[in-house]
Amino acid sequence: MTKIKQITHYLETENLTAAVLSDPVTINYLTGFYSDPHERQMFLFICTDRQPLLFVPALEVERANSAVDFQVAGYVDSENPWEKIREILSPSTKSRIALEFDNLILSKYQGLKQVFEGAVFSDLTPFVNRMRLIKSADEIKKMLVAGQFADQAVQRGFAAIAAGKTETDLIAEIEFEMKKLGLEMSFETMVLTDDNAANPHGIPGPNPIKKDALLLFDLGVMANGYASDMTRTVAVGQPDQFKKDIYQLTLEAQRAALDFIKPGVTAHEVDRAARQVIEKAGYGSYFNHRLGHGIGMDVHEFPSIMEGNDLVIEEGMCFSVEPGVYIPGKVGVRIEDCGYVTKDGFKLFTETSKDLLYFDL
Amino acid sequence: MTKIKQITHYLETENLTAAVLSDPVTINYLTGFYSDPHERQMFLFICTDRQPLLFVPALEVERANSAVDFQVAGYVDSENPWEKIREILSPSTKSRIALEFDNLILSKYQGLKQVFEGAVFSDLTPFVNRMRLIKSADEIKKMLVAGQFADQAVQRGFAAIAAGKTETDLIAEIEFEMKKLGLEMSFETMVLTDDNAANPHGIPGPNPIKKDALLLFDLGVMANGYASDMTRTVAVGQPDQFKKDIYQLTLEAQRAALDFIKPGVTAHEVDRAARQVIEKAGYGSYFNHRLGHGIGMDVHEFPSIMEGNDLVIEEGMCFSVEPGVYIPGKVGVRIEDCGYVTKDGFKLFTETSKDLLYFDL
Repeated sequence: MTKIKQITHYLETENLTAAVLSDPVTINYLTGFYSDPHERQMFLFICTDRQPLLFVPALEVERANSAVDFQVAGYVDSENPWEKIREILSPSTKSRIALEFDNLILSKYQGLKQVFEGAVFSDLTPFVNRMRLIKSADEIKKMLVAGQFADQAVQRGFAAIAAGKTETDLIAEIEFEMKKLGLEMSFETMVLTDDNAANPHGIPGPNPIKKDALLLFDLGVMANGYASDMTRTVAVGQPDQFKKDIYQLTLEAQRAALDFIKPGVTAHEVDRAARQVIEKAGYGSYFNHRLGHGIGMDVHEFPSIMEGNDLVIEEGMCFSVEPGVYIPGKVGVRIEDCGYVTKDGFKLFTETSKDLLYFDL
Repeated sequence: MTKIKQITHYLETENLTAAVLSDPVTINYLTGFYSDPHERQMFLFICTDRQPLLFVPALEVERANSAVDFQVAGYVDSENPWEKIREILSPSTKSRIALEFDNLILSKYQGLKQVFEGAVFSDLTPFVNRMRLIKSADEIKKMLVAGQFADQAVQRGFAAIAAGKTETDLIAEIEFEMKKLGLEMSFETMVLTDDNAANPHGIPGPNPIKKDALLLFDLGVMANGYASDMTRTVAVGQPDQFKKDIYQLTLEAQRAALDFIKPGVTAHEVDRAARQVIEKAGYGSYFNHRLGHGIGMDVHEFPSIMEGNDLVIEEGMCFSVEPGVYIPGKVGVRIEDCGYVTKDGFKLFTETSKDLLYFDL
């Protein structure tokens, strides 16, 4: 069943008349066509009584037409997009419409209320999340490729460590390596030295890489529409024993979760598997974020691997496992890999060693 | 009057009880604190009956506290953010709440409906747009700096033109130059050679820079929270006379608009000033987008400089002027500068020459 047919089937089961997709990434997932319309309007209408309609800014009509085998319509800036959609679809006054509540902004919702006058609206996000949650073999292949680029990027970062270089210098060299390959990062690369890594959302800057300290790299690459995301923390010079101990503790926590993951356990239990290692060592309060997040065409997507989430893990789910220990002014460590759930375990998209690596300045 | 007081004054005038800001850029504009909460919750509550509240993910509490001088509250992933906000604000059941309709997604709107049970909601976007529309002298200073970096970036691109190089290579070298300075681009840099530039939303790739053709650079830089955006089209080798004529026509159109802009004219008239030059030459249908867009903390913001927009231009407005002529398979030219409206004219943020520049391969 094609992905669009899965949506149509859902509409029929739920007795709905149409789904309106507004998230450019979901539209890409369903059709293979990607565009960021910025403040303009772009929607995919999947209807039970007609073929789909991809509605895009006029500039994108040509590219959209070559990407999909159903109707494409465009509008120029001086036209009213809502009237144009209404003319094309001429919807009944008794429409029952599913929308992406996790994407649609209120002003677009108001536009769609004009298009579908008198309609009843419901939330399509849970169904789309569920579709995107379980990756196909083809998607996992693409994510392995994105993971390999992340490995290559972090190795470039390691190679760039040198006296006088700053966090910003290392980021520039990592991103240059990927840019030359025509690749975008999946988020803004973070390189954080010493104390700056002790803030889990620390901001990189022109800070010289410190000696006898830890150095954290958090990065990811987009490849073929799929994201990677990884974190490595390495030693520069000879960090003190406490820093090395916190590194080993974090690694032990990550391994505990990685070994635990398999179909049938819950997201809550996966988080607990890592968290209890850090809690037992007395540092629970310094691991102040969830263990992980789903990943796919978005670098952060459903589900959250966190306490209280009773979602049952299934084969094909892809997410990050990223315990961290952040002791302000002392030390910050995070170790992160993303991977996919197999029939009986969890395999990683990234392969860079997690033995504490040492670099000289 | 501080910016937050301007919001409070608006609430009082409109007989509203609170404004809820959800756009991270608006929150930055109002408070100086910037964070991208991704799928987590972040709001600035400005109320008539209490001090403001900045509600952020727990990870951001420390940084938020050092940025603002009013109440900050955080929540961890396992907490219900809506209940937490409700406890802190304990709103009346007769609240009248202004929201950013152009930013707020439906699922967050549903959360806020739980917080403000029984409330009536209205749209704050027009008021925020209006505030952000007129830039202060301090903001214009920052935008001049962002413009200077765009000039530097495009010059780096020009210097990188060489035989064997691809669009992707030039982009990598431009962005590396900015990254080393710790700067982000304001959008994905575009370098488009020959035919690829004839698509106004063409996508760069590993295409070798062509000889005897035009080469288009569209780029911008973020500096101090403000964006720049510029486009230059240059000659590589000796493009034919038709390409050079289209270049001169586009430049003439841009100059017509730039000379026309002053307080009192309308956005429609500014667009027409450029468009009629291209129409008179018989290429009107090949200029298939609006003339320009507002710019500030976002690279695209209010207003649209387009036909049908009767907005009256005022001193302090900042926007792009970017006519383009795209003849598929033949030639693509766009020339873009952003600038600010003065007492009696329009001054540019970018200074790179617009004489047709020639580069050898």
